[in-house]
Amino acid sequence: MTTYHQMLSTVTTDGLEMKLVEREMPTPKDNEIVVQVEATPINPSDHGVMFGWADISKATSTGEGADRVLRAPLAPGGLSRMKARLGQDLPVGNEGAGVVVAAGSDDYAQSLMGKRVAVMGGGMYAGYRAIPAMTALPLPESATSKDGASCFVNPLTALCFVETMKNEGHTAIVHTAAASNLGQMLNRICQADGIEIVNVVRKSEQVELLKDMGAKYIVNSSDDDFHMQLTDAIHATGATLGFDAIGGGDMASKILTAMEAAAARTPGAYSIYGSVAHKQVYLYGSLDFSPTKLDRAYGMAWGVGGWLLPNFLAKAGMETAVRLRKRVAAELHTTFKSHYTDEISLSEALDADVVKRYNAKKTGEKFLINPQLGL
Amino acid sequence: MTTYHQMLSTVTTDGLEMKLVEREMPTPKDNEIVVQVEATPINPSDHGVMFGWADISKATSTGEGADRVLRAPLAPGGLSRMKARLGQDLPVGNEGAGVVVAAGSDDYAQSLMGKRVAVMGGGMYAGYRAIPAMTALPLPESATSKDGASCFVNPLTALCFVETMKNEGHTAIVHTAAASNLGQMLNRICQADGIEIVNVVRKSEQVELLKDMGAKYIVNSSDDDFHMQLTDAIHATGATLGFDAIGGGDMASKILTAMEAAAARTPGAYSIYGSVAHKQVYLYGSLDFSPTKLDRAYGMAWGVGGWLLPNFLAKAGMETAVRLRKRVAAELHTTFKSHYTDEISLSEALDADVVKRYNAKKTGEKFLINPQLGL
Repeated sequence: MTTYHQMLSTVTTDGLEMKLVEREMPTPKDNEIVVQVEATPINPSDHGVMFGWADISKATSTGEGADRVLRAPLAPGGLSRMKARLGQDLPVGNEGAGVVVAAGSDDYAQSLMGKRVAVMGGGMYAGYRAIPAMTALPLPESATSKDGASCFVNPLTALCFVETMKNEGHTAIVHTAAASNLGQMLNRICQADGIEIVNVVRKSEQVELLKDMGAKYIVNSSDDDFHMQLTDAIHATGATLGFDAIGGGDMASKILTAMEAAAARTPGAYSIYGSVAHKQVYLYGSLDFSPTKLDRAYGMAWGVGGWLLPNFLAKAGMETAVRLRKRVAAELHTTFKSHYTDEISLSEALDADVVKRYNAKKTGEKFLINPQLGL
Repeated sequence: MTTYHQMLSTVTTDGLEMKLVEREMPTPKDNEIVVQVEATPINPSDHGVMFGWADISKATSTGEGADRVLRAPLAPGGLSRMKARLGQDLPVGNEGAGVVVAAGSDDYAQSLMGKRVAVMGGGMYAGYRAIPAMTALPLPESATSKDGASCFVNPLTALCFVETMKNEGHTAIVHTAAASNLGQMLNRICQADGIEIVNVVRKSEQVELLKDMGAKYIVNSSDDDFHMQLTDAIHATGATLGFDAIGGGDMASKILTAMEAAAARTPGAYSIYGSVAHKQVYLYGSLDFSPTKLDRAYGMAWGVGGWLLPNFLAKAGMETAVRLRKRVAAELHTTFKSHYTDEISLSEALDADVVKRYNAKKTGEKFLINPQLGL
């Protein structure tokens, strides 16, 4: 085989267009390996690059197999928000796993020949991917590519939530969309490391799922007494840090309000300008694209901000990254086990009906692309 | 004289009540001084303790002189937000200046007898105030109490904006409500220290005022091309830090959007997840009580949070506080000069019509209470 297919996303003034292009097989540089990609997940963090501010509810696809093209109009205000990427063909897919089928002349690259590795390099929705050998994570013998496909984004995000907590002097965490793959990993990490976590979910099935995992604090945002449940759990755990996957609406504000109400129960924690300890919520996702609304009824010691794994890792430094990656490889079948509901080809991933399904980001649903499946 | 009057603010389920109570003259402890308060400003930061979440537009006052009482109903949602202070009689007034009329036995306290000092101790809307001598700032011989009344809140806030900028690795500042006393001080500091500042105002008179002061970047939020003006000024200055006095609405979001647009003009500053440098807006005031709305169209490297002088000073430590206070005393007649439009008595400060005037927080209007004026 001398060519392979790669998925590209392009935004123009006409809208979003995603397609597969045929590429020549790459020749690895001395320090590089070429990975035959066998499994690459569709994470919420991929949606940003894939779809940007397009209106996916109006997406259509044409053609079949390798010729399938997905098109969608831009959402209102989308164009001005995507100026920086206008006209660029962006490769998509943050992470994945596969077998090393070619390697450059460097010893380390050569040592990986034939091995199964996990990779976070971008452009993973493709049959093959050339990357520096140093960036690959060799998988244990027991692992399939499917097992190793999600080694980076979710595991490192969950681990880096805990790193952030420690770096910023907090001692417990509130997490929303807590029944997700990421949320389940975070619970396993917190249980192993003795950290209290308040899980916020929106359905009673999700309460049960987390209860079965041994989670101690689970709060259902659909319950009438959500604010009181949340305040009680925050009071019990002392959480002053939240990670919110929703982004839009008032969830971050509700968490800060509950933290403030919990502080008001604690003697000495309160001044006339509100509670004294810093309360922080990081928005790491955008399940809700609407504006974030903060009612600021929580004094002055609070913050809300974006949180992005690559930005955190860049600040945390190489030593931290190596330590965390080692833990992921060691606990791949336990702490960092992922579940997938659908395995699809590159072409199916551009089918408008399929796109609408995974774009819905339903908790429990998780799509895996296998670029080796026939187009 | 054996008694004096002190202003108190009390919130109950019935609403807000503010009154003057008669107190016995305090006897200073060994390390304390008693200050006869001659001048104490009404700062926006005082309003929070004075009025909380009361609806001042519906305030009424009854009685005259020392018997005057101000009452106002609570705003919707106000009660739950003020639980922590319910039923407490809170002394009000953050700062002021006056003459030391009694002192404890300690040498330092004794050394201040008869001197004019500035004080930030809370409870300053009162004829007299006993405080630890160490916390007083002796004023230069040339200064009246009026000159020294606003030595702390505005000067230290402006100086601590610059400290925050340096501590967090930014190099220029965006400031809203920039024509205020505080904004003018901040411009004088930035000019003296060679720091670029983007001044955001909402009226053309304010543009002129700042221009006359020598301000280089002035942007009018009432202009149609505000976003472009702001982006240009942020691009020119490299500002990635904003201080916003407005709090509610979308000003913080607009500043972040302009920072992102400025970053998109700079090669290398942009990734697919938005600009890489952290962009921060601190809300230090609440001229607009409505929710803060963030549209998050500025990537993931951003933060919004509350900023409060006492919290900052507590973190910055004593050495920083001493250094900044020395600068305030040295530059009291220049950099840190304040202007007042009205000088009123304690009783007048509780007159509903007067309250509505200073509660409007109009730029350029500034009220000073002189507790020695007859009630």
